[in-house]
Amino acid sequence: VNLAWAVERVLRTIRARLPEGVQAAREAALAEAHAITAEDVAACKRMAQHGLALLPPRVRLLTHCNAGAIATAGYGTALGVVRAAAAAGRLEQVYADETRPRQQGARLTAWELQQEGLPVTVIADTAAGSLMAHGAVNCVVVGADRIAANGDVANKIGTYPLAIMAAYHRIPFFVAAPLSTVDFDCADGTQIPVEQRDPDEVALIEGVRVVCEGVACENPAFDVTPAALVQAIITELGVARHPFKPSLAALRPH
Amino acid sequence: VNLAWAVERVLRTIRARLPEGVQAAREAALAEAHAITAEDVAACKRMAQHGLALLPPRVRLLTHCNAGAIATAGYGTALGVVRAAAAAGRLEQVYADETRPRQQGARLTAWELQQEGLPVTVIADTAAGSLMAHGAVNCVVVGADRIAANGDVANKIGTYPLAIMAAYHRIPFFVAAPLSTVDFDCADGTQIPVEQRDPDEVALIEGVRVVCEGVACENPAFDVTPAALVQAIITELGVARHPFKPSLAALRPH
Repeated sequence: VNLAWAVERVLRTIRARLPEGVQAAREAALAEAHAITAEDVAACKRMAQHGLALLPPRVRLLTHCNAGAIATAGYGTALGVVRAAAAAGRLEQVYADETRPRQQGARLTAWELQQEGLPVTVIADTAAGSLMAHGAVNCVVVGADRIAANGDVANKIGTYPLAIMAAYHRIPFFVAAPLSTVDFDCADGTQIPVEQRDPDEVALIEGVRVVCEGVACENPAFDVTPAALVQAIITELGVARHPFKPSLAALRPH
Repeated sequence: VNLAWAVERVLRTIRARLPEGVQAAREAALAEAHAITAEDVAACKRMAQHGLALLPPRVRLLTHCNAGAIATAGYGTALGVVRAAAAAGRLEQVYADETRPRQQGARLTAWELQQEGLPVTVIADTAAGSLMAHGAVNCVVVGADRIAANGDVANKIGTYPLAIMAAYHRIPFFVAAPLSTVDFDCADGTQIPVEQRDPDEVALIEGVRVVCEGVACENPAFDVTPAALVQAIITELGVARHPFKPSLAALRPH
C-alpha cells in the first residue's frame, strides 16, 4: 500500500508537468522522489520516537523480516524504533528472526544492524517461543505491508505466530508503519487476499533441493494478524490503540 | 530418554551373558536389539490406534520434525498415528513443518510419507499460524524427546510455538511417544536443560552463509511445551490426560 501510494504520487507529478515537456516531467519526477525519500526518513524518525515511548526501559526486542533502512528510504520502521532505542542507550539486544523462506532477517536485518554496531542475534523462526519463555525478549516490533481500517495487519509470513506467542507470554506486540500503509478502504483482514508464492522457495534452499521431487509445498507470502493481538500501531503521526478504527482514523490528516 | 533406555537394556543383556564368553554376549546383544525393534514396531502400532481414536473424523494433521519410521524402529510415533489415519481412510492431508535449522520435516518426513503415497505438503515453519487460521489444520501431532512426570514435553525446537498456536486456534495438540520417553525422575520441564547447538547451523544453510560473519546466532536444539498446552499424551499403553502426573503414573507397568 505504501509503495503504491509513492508511485501514484510521482505519477501525479509527471502528469502535471508533462505539458512542459519530457525533460521537465523527468526532473520533476526525480525531485518528487527525493522529496518522498526525505519525508520518509523524517517520518521514520518521528515514528521511532513515538515507538520508543512505548518500550520497556531496557529493550530486548524481537523483530521479523526486514523493516529497516533497506525496506524504507533509509531509517526504517521497526528498525527505526531499534535505532532510537540504541541512541537513547536503552537497547540491550535485538533478536532477528531468520524469516523463512527468504531469510530477510538473517540476511538484511542482521547486516543492517551489524553495520551500525548494534547488538543483534539471529535465530531460526522456530526458536522465538523458547526465547520468550526464558525472558530473553521483552517486546516484539514488526513492520507492516498493509493495515486494514480496523487494525488487522498483513505482514511477512511468520508475523502472526509471533503475535500469538507474544500475547501468550504477555509481551507487548507493536506494529511500526507509516500512516500511508493503512488502507482505510479495507474494512478488515478478511478482505486482504494472501498471495501464494513459488513453492520452490520452500523446496529449494540456496539452490539446494531439500524436499523430494513430487512433494507439494505451500508458500503463503503474508499472514494477517488480527488487531486484537496488536498492542499499538506506531505511525509517524502518533500511536493508534484499541479500538483501532477510530484511533487510526483520528491520526489521518484532513 | 528412550534411546538411553534401549542402550541400557542391551548393556544389561551383555553383562548377563559375558560370563559365557564374548561370542555369546555378542549374539545375545544382537538378539536383544532385534527384540527391541520388534517391540518398538508393535508398540508404535498400538500407540497409533490409541491416537487415531482421538483424531477428528477427517484428519488434516500438522507435524513437526520427524517422528516417523526413521526416528523409531520402523513405524513411527506421530507418523504412526498418520499411518493409522491413512489405513482407516480418514487422512485428508499432512502438513510437514520444514523444521529449521536442520530441515528434518522437509527432508525426512516428506520423503517418508511420499514413499507410502500419503498426501503430504511441506511448509516453512513461519506458515503454520496462517494455515491454522484458515482451517487447513485440525490437529497437531508431534513426538517427544523427553516427557517430565507432570506432562511437560521437551521436543525439537519449534514444537512449543505450535502448541501455543494450536491452543489459540482451539486445535487439539497431541504428543505421541512411548512410555519409555517419560522420565518419572524429572518432576517438570524446568529441570530439563536446553542444549545449545552450533550457531553455524543457523548462519549457514546447506553450506551457504546467509548471516554476515561476526553476527551472533542462537541455536537452542529443543524447547519445552508446558503440559497445560498438551491435550493428551499418546503412549503404547494408553492415553494420558490432565492431570498428567497421576495419568502417566497409572500407565506405568509395575
